[in-house]
Amino acid sequence: MAITFVEHNSLDAQQIESGEQFAPKFDAAGLITAITCEAGSGQILMVAHMNKRALELTLQTGIVHYYSRSRAALWKKGETSGEIQKLVGMRTDCDQDVLQLLVEQTGRGAACHTGRKSCFYRQVVIKNDAVLLKCDEEPPVFDPAKVYKK
Amino acid sequence: MAITFVEHNSLDAQQIESGEQFAPKFDAAGLITAITCEAGSGQILMVAHMNKRALELTLQTGIVHYYSRSRAALWKKGETSGEIQKLVGMRTDCDQDVLQLLVEQTGRGAACHTGRKSCFYRQVVIKNDAVLLKCDEEPPVFDPAKVYKK
Repeated sequence: MAITFVEHNSLDAQQIESGEQFAPKFDAAGLITAITCEAGSGQILMVAHMNKRALELTLQTGIVHYYSRSRAALWKKGETSGEIQKLVGMRTDCDQDVLQLLVEQTGRGAACHTGRKSCFYRQVVIKNDAVLLKCDEEPPVFDPAKVYKK
Repeated sequence: MAITFVEHNSLDAQQIESGEQFAPKFDAAGLITAITCEAGSGQILMVAHMNKRALELTLQTGIVHYYSRSRAALWKKGETSGEIQKLVGMRTDCDQDVLQLLVEQTGRGAACHTGRKSCFYRQVVIKNDAVLLKCDEEPPVFDPAKVYKK
């Protein structure tokens, strides 16, 4: 199936906010922010970016693809680690510049490259006038040194 | 209380991912992405940006402040609409370039400027080979034309 999106700039604000046309807004670098959540619980697993091709492939195949800014390349999530994400649903916000992906996290169930289920494993806490991070007690699901071999 | 953050670039990757020092990574424009969720349910309400000052004020006052890119100004959420957000918790991700805010949404309970509880009120659906948006049936909480007077 060919996936086509409406050009964001071809719509006015009212059409973008209230219409039923999907017109994702890619930024100057050609990217849109994707917030990936566990289907069912809604827990945020990770935040990454997609270019047009990654979004097309994700919708076409049902397997989540991102664009890696550090590697400047299309990124099929889980290709190295086995932590493939199956797309269960997708939502967008009022101005269509953010996507929410609802996924089933396969593999060992870790979306984060540190081996944890979620990248958001630390709370920001204020303690004795200092702002610190407090790590959740849940241990990582895998050891990244063993999964990402150099 | 004075809020101070560690300079992101002063830490190495290991310290950023595993340490307890809060060193938020502001992008080239001096901004960090904030995903704002309803405390308790975890439902995503909105996505916005913070500069250093907005993050300091949020932690100092317990009232969420953002930086409005369209107005290029500090933005105390709810100042016009009354939809103030009380900070209940904050988390950050592995590389500390995204914040998750857990808030109590006051006022009428609408985080979105369209008058809805959440900005993510539309599903992306594939229908007859076209990608379309399907709006949730939940009606807006307020009428933006009455709240944001020109």
